[in-house]
Amino acid sequence: MDRSRTEAFSDGVFAVAITLLVLNLHAPEGDLREGLLHMWPAYLAYVVSFLSIGIMWMNHHAVFRHVVRVDRALQLANLLLLMVIVAVPFPTDLLGRQLAHELHGGDTATVTFVYGLVMIAMAAGFSLVWWYAVLRPGVIDARLSREWLRRANFRFSVGAAGYLAGTALALWEPLLSLILFGLLSLYYAFEHLPTPSSDDTPSNSPAGS
Amino acid sequence: MDRSRTEAFSDGVFAVAITLLVLNLHAPEGDLREGLLHMWPAYLAYVVSFLSIGIMWMNHHAVFRHVVRVDRALQLANLLLLMVIVAVPFPTDLLGRQLAHELHGGDTATVTFVYGLVMIAMAAGFSLVWWYAVLRPGVIDARLSREWLRRANFRFSVGAAGYLAGTALALWEPLLSLILFGLLSLYYAFEHLPTPSSDDTPSNSPAGS
Amino acid sequence: MDRSRTEAFSDGVFAVAITLLVLNLHAPEGDLREGLLHMWPAYLAYVVSFLSIGIMWMNHHAVFRHVVRVDRALQLANLLLLMVIVAVPFPTDLLGRQLAHELHGGDTATVTFVYGLVMIAMAAGFSLVWWYAVLRPGVIDARLSREWLRRANFRFSVGAAGYLAGTALALWEPLLSLILFGLLSLYYAFEHLPTPSSDDTPSNSPAGS
Amino acid sequence: MDRSRTEAFSDGVFAVAITLLVLNLHAPEGDLREGLLHMWPAYLAYVVSFLSIGIMWMNHHAVFRHVVRVDRALQLANLLLLMVIVAVPFPTDLLGRQLAHELHGGDTATVTFVYGLVMIAMAAGFSLVWWYAVLRPGVIDARLSREWLRRANFRFSVGAAGYLAGTALALWEPLLSLILFGLLSLYYAFEHLPTPSSDDTPSNSPAGS
Repeated sequence: MDRSRTEAFSDGVFAVAITLLVLNLHAPEGDLREGLLHMWPAYLAYVVSFLSIGIMWMNHHAVFRHVVRVDRALQLANLLLLMVIVAVPFPTDLLGRQLAHELHGGDTATVTFVYGLVMIAMAAGFSLVWWYAVLRPGVIDARLSREWLRRANFRFSVGAAGYLAGTALALWEPLLSLILFGLLSLYYAFEHLPTPSSDDTPSNSPAGS
Repeated sequence: MDRSRTEAFSDGVFAVAITLLVLNLHAPEGDLREGLLHMWPAYLAYVVSFLSIGIMWMNHHAVFRHVVRVDRALQLANLLLLMVIVAVPFPTDLLGRQLAHELHGGDTATVTFVYGLVMIAMAAGFSLVWWYAVLRPGVIDARLSREWLRRANFRFSVGAAGYLAGTALALWEPLLSLILFGLLSLYYAFEHLPTPSSDDTPSNSPAGS
Repeated sequence: MDRSRTEAFSDGVFAVAITLLVLNLHAPEGDLREGLLHMWPAYLAYVVSFLSIGIMWMNHHAVFRHVVRVDRALQLANLLLLMVIVAVPFPTDLLGRQLAHELHGGDTATVTFVYGLVMIAMAAGFSLVWWYAVLRPGVIDARLSREWLRRANFRFSVGAAGYLAGTALALWEPLLSLILFGLLSLYYAFEHLPTPSSDDTPSNSPAGS
Repeated sequence: MDRSRTEAFSDGVFAVAITLLVLNLHAPEGDLREGLLHMWPAYLAYVVSFLSIGIMWMNHHAVFRHVVRVDRALQLANLLLLMVIVAVPFPTDLLGRQLAHELHGGDTATVTFVYGLVMIAMAAGFSLVWWYAVLRPGVIDARLSREWLRRANFRFSVGAAGYLAGTALALWEPLLSLILFGLLSLYYAFEHLPTPSSDDTPSNSPAGS
């Protein structure tokens, strides 16, 4: 299968999921000015989720541009990752509402914990795609695969530790936990996958794009 | 007409429809923890519908990449298929609400039956695109067309029997029916259309991309 | 400017607008079975609007594939067309609710009339794009331009007469009016723009894709 | 990184954000005809926001088509711009509701001021992308960069003055402020970035698209 439609479909899903986050911003009831200020948790949740999905897209892009063959298993792994991406607006909505005391009988620890579980699932979904691409012969450029494997250990240790710590932290310090998730996004934005400096597209590019 | 914009539009519709499924996940009322657990039918409906649309996209992709000419009739057939795809979030929402006893005066059998009817319509829409592509000379690679026809009988028999059985089953065992629809998706993910092993794109590719 | 991103953006807008139509299908209140049957006006409005947007997309595609130069004026005209396309779910929602007697103080004639006005605006927006493309030298293939102009008179007379008649009819026979709008879509699906039979892409294609 | 997927993702986000504006048009309560007329502020807000996003897309397109190398920093700047674009439906919704006196305890000045702040953030986000592209060596065609810099001073002075003035004006004359934002969009539609007249794509185009 050619890579371009898998990328096009994934780009579409990422773009829609990230845009649906705005639906979590509702006109406040009661006094308007106070309401707009009082909504800050919704803005914070919006920013953290936007960065999480946006930078996950950047990493998705960084992997797929070196993919030379898309098989059914890679598509299924990708579909599972997208299933988590699409779900992100739900815990984001919960989080914004809870932090603004709009949920009845809720507690912030539970909601942030659920948010953390979705972050873990997202990281796990990306790892599935990544390891399949790296370990399955012929999916990505073989030379690149070795270079990526060297870098992967440190990178994934940080990510796994960060998301697990953030989710555990949610039970005691939800806000700190949320800020940690935002920082993890920024970490992944800068500590990125290496790219071969010489050329920008794999030599045996299948379908142009 | 060239194929690439039909694919781009279809990819967009698939991507938006699959992402709108998240709107069926609402913040629960009442106790939060209990509410989140109590919502499991909404999660199940989300997963089954996500897989159904996602794997339908994979099959759509598998057919269209061998299409060498897109005519008006194929576009209309494709539009009918998309009209069903776009509707999927509606019965998904009904199903999630019903299984969680949120609908007044509803019964699970009816809702799951309606869900099954939409699945049948989706399969019928895909068959329409498929048979048109295979039987209309010049739409797909002629050699491929013969190979596909051989495989089609078994594949479509399983699908038709499965969706009909699932929809009938809905009247007695709604949950089992829903699980069957999920399994049918996975069946289609693996029992896929054959691809010519030698090259990956049709020799007379019309519009690149 | 190159054509491909204008097409990509337009495809995205068409795809999202057509998919948002599903949000007009709500879980019925009261008895479920009766409610689902009682909702038929919402289904009808869904189908008519889906076909109207879908076939407008097909015609948009048919024009833009022969565009060899996209200038600012064409982009603005395209943006105005898209502004109407995006608005279609609003009168569709009104129509479905009104026909199902869900609006307070509404009358079907008014709602169908508003729906007709949006259809007229959509046709006007498309005409704007079309005439600009045909009349502005250098936007489309000059030979094609002459061929299109010959066909245009009849085609646009039917369209203009149809949408005006449908909108006027709305004041007396709203349902008939709605059915007429659906039939106009199908007319445009088949009475389409001529395509040069020899080759499928303009000789001086600007940006591939 | 290649440019085409960044453009595809951005196009998707622009397309979804602009389409979600329709969700701010709700069926009116009370008398239908009066309600539809009474909703004019929602229509006005729809048009101004649609033009603002649409023309921002045109300018985004005008910059990115000359980009020859997309690095992480450009992607992050682009992501920040998109974060504002995606948020636009929120103040649009507030504005439409407020002008129609649907918000409790709101005042028009506050809402229009908030709308203006989002417009300023959007302009700032675009400037970030623009200045990075122009000043970072190797991101866009160097010859173009000099030509763009000459034009930029006047262009950005108008924009900055306009958005700041509009936002300040919001505190006294909200409606006038909103109309000014609409006019600024149209200004940017016509006072656009120069394009080299000879060829339409940069000589060292990275990924075609």
